[in-house]
Amino acid sequence: MSVSFGKCKSVLITGSSRGLGLQMVKNLAKSSDRPATIIATARNPTASMDLQELSKTYPGVHIVPLDVVSEHSVSSAMEEVRSIVGSEGLNCLINNAAINISTDINTVSVDAMMKTFQSNTVAPLFVTKAFLPLLQAAAAQSSGMGIHRAAVINMSSILGSIQSNWGDSATFKSYAYRTSKAALNMVTRCLAADLGSNGILCISLHPGWVKTDMGGPNADLTVEESVSNMLAVITNLTDKDHGGFKDYSGKDLPW
Amino acid sequence: MSVSFGKCKSVLITGSSRGLGLQMVKNLAKSSDRPATIIATARNPTASMDLQELSKTYPGVHIVPLDVVSEHSVSSAMEEVRSIVGSEGLNCLINNAAINISTDINTVSVDAMMKTFQSNTVAPLFVTKAFLPLLQAAAAQSSGMGIHRAAVINMSSILGSIQSNWGDSATFKSYAYRTSKAALNMVTRCLAADLGSNGILCISLHPGWVKTDMGGPNADLTVEESVSNMLAVITNLTDKDHGGFKDYSGKDLPW
Repeated sequence: MSVSFGKCKSVLITGSSRGLGLQMVKNLAKSSDRPATIIATARNPTASMDLQELSKTYPGVHIVPLDVVSEHSVSSAMEEVRSIVGSEGLNCLINNAAINISTDINTVSVDAMMKTFQSNTVAPLFVTKAFLPLLQAAAAQSSGMGIHRAAVINMSSILGSIQSNWGDSATFKSYAYRTSKAALNMVTRCLAADLGSNGILCISLHPGWVKTDMGGPNADLTVEESVSNMLAVITNLTDKDHGGFKDYSGKDLPW
Repeated sequence: MSVSFGKCKSVLITGSSRGLGLQMVKNLAKSSDRPATIIATARNPTASMDLQELSKTYPGVHIVPLDVVSEHSVSSAMEEVRSIVGSEGLNCLINNAAINISTDINTVSVDAMMKTFQSNTVAPLFVTKAFLPLLQAAAAQSSGMGIHRAAVINMSSILGSIQSNWGDSATFKSYAYRTSKAALNMVTRCLAADLGSNGILCISLHPGWVKTDMGGPNADLTVEESVSNMLAVITNLTDKDHGGFKDYSGKDLPW
């Protein structure tokens, strides 16, 4: 699939110091038809040499520190991003930052459940709320639905599909991760119901099973494969996709 | 529908000081074909005159203090219940205790999200984990699946259905409540996958829109109607229902 992200003037990606987030920044920065402004956020961006290198090499790649679970950090980042994007606002917010604590029925703890929910479910909601004025500013300048106007992409997972968690697909045990992603899917759906009339498209996206620190070496897809496919899916989003749950190939997934 | 709960020797209901929980205790206690042991738990049971009255009037109605979000309280309650049910174990656990903080996109707070998730999602998981030895003891004495053996009933809500949260059904706004119940449905599904081989049936149940403090006076069903229907559904559960999401009439709901 072709990636023509140029119609999207600005994109912000959380959790971009490594894994899928870093690769998204990389692919977008190198693309010939790219967003003019790429905002890469991470809790501790100075620790990511890759990210520092990208922002030095490619124009329009801005690094903004953002700890998604800190109210203060979210609000500082929002002010910095506002000064970067100006009155044109922000076209595309990709809520990618997430944690995964290994938790089966024996090892799951209250703390693991709460921390994972905070990072993977609550943070994307409050990051979206904080950046809403910028998304609304972008949406006000265009019509239709898609990344040419305004979009919120929540990085979810097939592991958050309640229906799929059965039989062979239930082999991967993680109470904390699975509940956080099912709850994130509900956040996507609530946001879609609330923001659709503002022209802000909202979806949940499953990256596939990817060879990241999280997915491990036996996964199906390389980080490159997952990201190039996902960026193509994001590029082609229309009003028909609003409020949906798709995988990296564009296939609809069951809730 | 007829309620023949006698095949279930013991049932425990959380959050039974009022609303649906109290009515369940009432209906079961008064039934001619009833569990010998009915354990009504509540955070502060001495404050519920109705509950005190029921336990004085009907034999086998035990009141046990249980604050579902307190690890210490859960573990004390488990020991007390163990001494009540003895080696026969516990046949049916109804995770009914829940909170609802009103939260639309403007009013939702991190605190409301976290507290609601803790009460409505994390607590049912850890109450179930704590009582697992008693459920397993009951399951070991029988075969098949249903309340004659062992069952975990998670009181969920259609508001937790991600698929249903669209169009007219998305009118009710509550980020905190909806995400907590979607996540609870995932907990049900994880527990079902893990406990099925132990002979412990797990489902999510939607009580309908009920005239309780939570549902308000304009709701469809009286508390009596909802509870008598739900008890009939619970009575008739078989292996076919394991891992499912049903409403008070027995209808399957989408995740």
